[in-house]
Amino acid sequence: MKAIVKSEPGPGLEVLSVKEPKLGSRDVLIKVRVTGICGTDLHIYNWDEWSANRVKPPLILGHEFCGDVVEIGPEVTKVAVGDYVSAECHMACEQCYQCKTGQPHICSNVKVCGIDRHGAYATYVSIPEQFIWKLADDISPEIAAIFDPIGNAVYTVLSGDVAGTTVGIIGCGPIGLAAIPIARASGATCVTGFDISDYRLKMAEGAMGADYVIDSSKVDPLTAAKDITKSVGFDVVLEMSGHPSGINNAFKMVRAGGRVSLLGLPKSAVSVDLANDIVLKGITVLGIHGRRMFDTWYQTTRMIQSGRVDLTPLITHQMKFEEVDKAMEIMSSGRCGKVLLHPE
Amino acid sequence: MKAIVKSEPGPGLEVLSVKEPKLGSRDVLIKVRVTGICGTDLHIYNWDEWSANRVKPPLILGHEFCGDVVEIGPEVTKVAVGDYVSAECHMACEQCYQCKTGQPHICSNVKVCGIDRHGAYATYVSIPEQFIWKLADDISPEIAAIFDPIGNAVYTVLSGDVAGTTVGIIGCGPIGLAAIPIARASGATCVTGFDISDYRLKMAEGAMGADYVIDSSKVDPLTAAKDITKSVGFDVVLEMSGHPSGINNAFKMVRAGGRVSLLGLPKSAVSVDLANDIVLKGITVLGIHGRRMFDTWYQTTRMIQSGRVDLTPLITHQMKFEEVDKAMEIMSSGRCGKVLLHPE
Amino acid sequence: MKAIVKSEPGPGLEVLSVKEPKLGSRDVLIKVRVTGICGTDLHIYNWDEWSANRVKPPLILGHEFCGDVVEIGPEVTKVAVGDYVSAECHMACEQCYQCKTGQPHICSNVKVCGIDRHGAYATYVSIPEQFIWKLADDISPEIAAIFDPIGNAVYTVLSGDVAGTTVGIIGCGPIGLAAIPIARASGATCVTGFDISDYRLKMAEGAMGADYVIDSSKVDPLTAAKDITKSVGFDVVLEMSGHPSGINNAFKMVRAGGRVSLLGLPKSAVSVDLANDIVLKGITVLGIHGRRMFDTWYQTTRMIQSGRVDLTPLITHQMKFEEVDKAMEIMSSGRCGKVLLHPE
Amino acid sequence: MKAIVKSEPGPGLEVLSVKEPKLGSRDVLIKVRVTGICGTDLHIYNWDEWSANRVKPPLILGHEFCGDVVEIGPEVTKVAVGDYVSAECHMACEQCYQCKTGQPHICSNVKVCGIDRHGAYATYVSIPEQFIWKLADDISPEIAAIFDPIGNAVYTVLSGDVAGTTVGIIGCGPIGLAAIPIARASGATCVTGFDISDYRLKMAEGAMGADYVIDSSKVDPLTAAKDITKSVGFDVVLEMSGHPSGINNAFKMVRAGGRVSLLGLPKSAVSVDLANDIVLKGITVLGIHGRRMFDTWYQTTRMIQSGRVDLTPLITHQMKFEEVDKAMEIMSSGRCGKVLLHPE
Repeated sequence: MKAIVKSEPGPGLEVLSVKEPKLGSRDVLIKVRVTGICGTDLHIYNWDEWSANRVKPPLILGHEFCGDVVEIGPEVTKVAVGDYVSAECHMACEQCYQCKTGQPHICSNVKVCGIDRHGAYATYVSIPEQFIWKLADDISPEIAAIFDPIGNAVYTVLSGDVAGTTVGIIGCGPIGLAAIPIARASGATCVTGFDISDYRLKMAEGAMGADYVIDSSKVDPLTAAKDITKSVGFDVVLEMSGHPSGINNAFKMVRAGGRVSLLGLPKSAVSVDLANDIVLKGITVLGIHGRRMFDTWYQTTRMIQSGRVDLTPLITHQMKFEEVDKAMEIMSSGRCGKVLLHPE
Repeated sequence: MKAIVKSEPGPGLEVLSVKEPKLGSRDVLIKVRVTGICGTDLHIYNWDEWSANRVKPPLILGHEFCGDVVEIGPEVTKVAVGDYVSAECHMACEQCYQCKTGQPHICSNVKVCGIDRHGAYATYVSIPEQFIWKLADDISPEIAAIFDPIGNAVYTVLSGDVAGTTVGIIGCGPIGLAAIPIARASGATCVTGFDISDYRLKMAEGAMGADYVIDSSKVDPLTAAKDITKSVGFDVVLEMSGHPSGINNAFKMVRAGGRVSLLGLPKSAVSVDLANDIVLKGITVLGIHGRRMFDTWYQTTRMIQSGRVDLTPLITHQMKFEEVDKAMEIMSSGRCGKVLLHPE
Repeated sequence: MKAIVKSEPGPGLEVLSVKEPKLGSRDVLIKVRVTGICGTDLHIYNWDEWSANRVKPPLILGHEFCGDVVEIGPEVTKVAVGDYVSAECHMACEQCYQCKTGQPHICSNVKVCGIDRHGAYATYVSIPEQFIWKLADDISPEIAAIFDPIGNAVYTVLSGDVAGTTVGIIGCGPIGLAAIPIARASGATCVTGFDISDYRLKMAEGAMGADYVIDSSKVDPLTAAKDITKSVGFDVVLEMSGHPSGINNAFKMVRAGGRVSLLGLPKSAVSVDLANDIVLKGITVLGIHGRRMFDTWYQTTRMIQSGRVDLTPLITHQMKFEEVDKAMEIMSSGRCGKVLLHPE
Repeated sequence: MKAIVKSEPGPGLEVLSVKEPKLGSRDVLIKVRVTGICGTDLHIYNWDEWSANRVKPPLILGHEFCGDVVEIGPEVTKVAVGDYVSAECHMACEQCYQCKTGQPHICSNVKVCGIDRHGAYATYVSIPEQFIWKLADDISPEIAAIFDPIGNAVYTVLSGDVAGTTVGIIGCGPIGLAAIPIARASGATCVTGFDISDYRLKMAEGAMGADYVIDSSKVDPLTAAKDITKSVGFDVVLEMSGHPSGINNAFKMVRAGGRVSLLGLPKSAVSVDLANDIVLKGITVLGIHGRRMFDTWYQTTRMIQSGRVDLTPLITHQMKFEEVDKAMEIMSSGRCGKVLLHPE
């Protein structure tokens, strides 16, 4: 079958013909329809320090996808051939404290599809049945392919109360952009997006519907936040940039008693004024990783299926597996929303 | 000044000329612009058993209103003459356990304006400053006058998670109707209204935007709930009818692990299948009374001011104090949303 | 092997020689050390209406037990021969909405061991590996055998905040009795037990350590609650009797804004003054069923293992399988705590 | 009257004869029985940078105290002459968003007694009635005098679930020491104290009852935490040192999904590995300031009055106002628990 493979350590990816995956007794074989590119895939493409330490080539990449079940292992009971599915690619161990207490999204022994085991940039992918998410037919394959990152946005937004609040979103990459209409649909009465890319701020304000967008390279974001919130501060700040200044601004922009949900991953330690910005303000800081299994998947499905949230405009580019280099170039430029890759 | 008064025990109300209220040192005198009629006012008008036990005539009625501050007591520091205001009419004692722990809405010694002390159906009303809610000029007096019942709806909807949920609302009186767009704006992905009045179901579906409306006099509500939720049950049920069958349906319609928020007040004890409908299903039942001070007022303000919720169509009738008998007749008919009374 | 069997519809149980269970690929075979008798077992023994509708003889009873793993199915990866274990006998389907969102304790399709499938009153019992709970050696087999009902008590107590609260426990059967030291160890600063059995009130006050015990047949429980709480009402009431008067008292004894957790199962519908006791008081009512998987099992283990809670005195009788009739007679008398049955 | 005064900028304090405070209409005059010394008082005594920026001499210090009401202002209705009282010295504005939504402990405009206005190191102190906390006679004046710092400990411990958890407490100063028995009484099944002072570790293990104490100057605290929690990490970490290494250890010691409550105030920005220690672990970080009004005061009272928590051994030194220099010297040495000052 065809697959996008990191065949050896170092930058780049290759489209190769590889063997089809073998099915374990509880595994499900899926013919892939559409896949999405995550920032993580770009890191692995570029072979940064994190990738070099974590990824063991040869590896098929890809953890955002949807497809159709074409075969099931002998012990599979909850998924059938013909099911239209996506999957949770954070494969939890089902055995650690977190897994045994309803928090498999922070499993201590997680294996991620496309990072720690073969992924979905392929004609077929094999997934244990307990990680399968069944899709309704009225969800388009393009949107279904990106339930994973939409789920990141949904989980971040809904990690605390949103209805009747003012929300600041720092970083308008694809997940930050997705968070805008999700926050609005969840009752945020004022949503402000912060970024330094004109392209993304336009998407934030236009298709995504932010009430305000702030170009932090031109306007002081703290002053802007003060003006927008009449000096109270945001009730909720979603940090999706991972930049040290974004993170510090998040803590400074939130009102006393408010919530900061941190999704963005800074590359190294960040210096924070904990006393003034966290302790004395009595704020709540939440680390957000992955998506809740499967609470977030239900919430995502309902928001999409009801039409309350339309993320079609988030998808700005679609191309074939063979164009993966071009796709990565577009991702690097930052002048895109979600970029999809089709096997055919 | 002019006032609508229950001058003695028994049915009816009179428009009389009465003395202006005296101001205590921490009181605020408000010239009333617009008032709303609550179901409670209708009970007092009809002089039902509850009213006869609670209300001590002569009494000026009215606890939904807005107006302008025209005078302040000598110790008032937080409200100024000229402020455009409404007020929390549940006057909490500031001394009981509930008041001292952030729950004054369930104060053990509450005195309600228009029930236990003179109310707002008058040219002027006097209110202690700590219960004043300041209004922004861009909120219309008609909507400002009904922040109290809108607040009931907001508090009921937001007494638990709403985003990404299916919501059933039992009883489409004014508060149930208001709850529909509030639930939608708060992220409910499917809102179903239940009632037996064709007039109100039309409002629920039309101006209020329910996804589904069910006439429980024609369709079995439990079957309808099952169909709508694909046999799962509603995540959230808001009981706003106070009818025994509505309450029992609420417990039966909610999914295992879901939430039922009870706002409606049944007239007498209700027989409930606690074992099957509450215990074994592991549901959460919340008693909802009044509005949170002042969390709910902020939430309400933000929803209205942002335009996320438009409740103007909820107001179906407006008339003068002198037409109070006619207003009560309309209220009794059930063929109305909110009915407002203007002093002039 | 030996087993206690309901061999046909009707009262009574027999100790029979039966075939050993067959192991599925993910099943674990356990040699039973000790078992406990639940009130449910007594219902099935007596063959009440509920049992007649639910249980399909022939059936091996028993869902409280501990033992040693002697064999594992070929797909079992998380349990090993020699492990000392108990098990969650509420076998959740892993597929319904509740199971997929971290609430398998209220699974819509649950099968209970000893009720819907063969149970643990036998030399050997077969359990799917995902329901196994591994035990540390320093937990005695007697206590390990009753982790299921201790878990009911732990879940009920910890279904809301307890530290610094006053707690009323209605019904001092084995679970109510267990809840007393658990509530104390969890920070309740005043624990009051209500019952009508002198035997159980003595256990409540003596070995279990209640601050107060009230004989509701001799003293008005509402007056007692008022006195103990200085008219405020209990912060938390745990209803463990299932009696209509106990349930109504629970709602009346709790303070405005407090919590009532309902574990007891009334036999039929109960008439409740919802308006005054739930709605206007703004209380929270929680239906409690089973135990959280496996949050409650961890909490239980820690409380027992740390010595913070000692439930040894709760076990008042121990006998052999062959004495099951005598055991049921003692259970019926109410003059007991937990009654254990040993296979040998 | 006698008072301990910072009469001008610079180190030191003086015991002077000063005028008695004037009473406002809602103020209460209290004859002080006993006072406590807070770390903040030591900062002001030493006149560190923070003090020099915040405190405006001349000022009477002291915000931990108890005493007897000897006079009340004309508008006071909830406190009477003869009441035995303490007070919340964080005087909230009652007007900001936080104050209006049940979070006055993080009021944006707070004035602290003994820092921003005259305090309690005096024969008499004047306090607005809404900040008064009435005491029962069976609470000793020594304990009553330190309800403020005990409240810090109670609020920190109870800022999340504690029952059935493992708790690490970093920093065994007076508040950290107090947190040990409070955490135990609230259901923590394993409490570990970390410090570098032999004196305080002995108190932690001895009178305070920690299950484990770790001298971080001799043993690697992360290794110790791993051993104690069998590699899972603490469920809850309470950071009470304010040291950069303590804070970083807190984030590293907590298990994925756990809670870190930050009470200690670092002097400057702290570098934190946010990605690995907060985001990817999905932890909750809470800033803790002051005490909840008055939830924490109730909890504290109940824990003390019920005898569940005995903090008498925490008080290691008591002396007269005139010995304030000696008291501050003892405080500086760190070889003490709480130090009390008596006016007479």
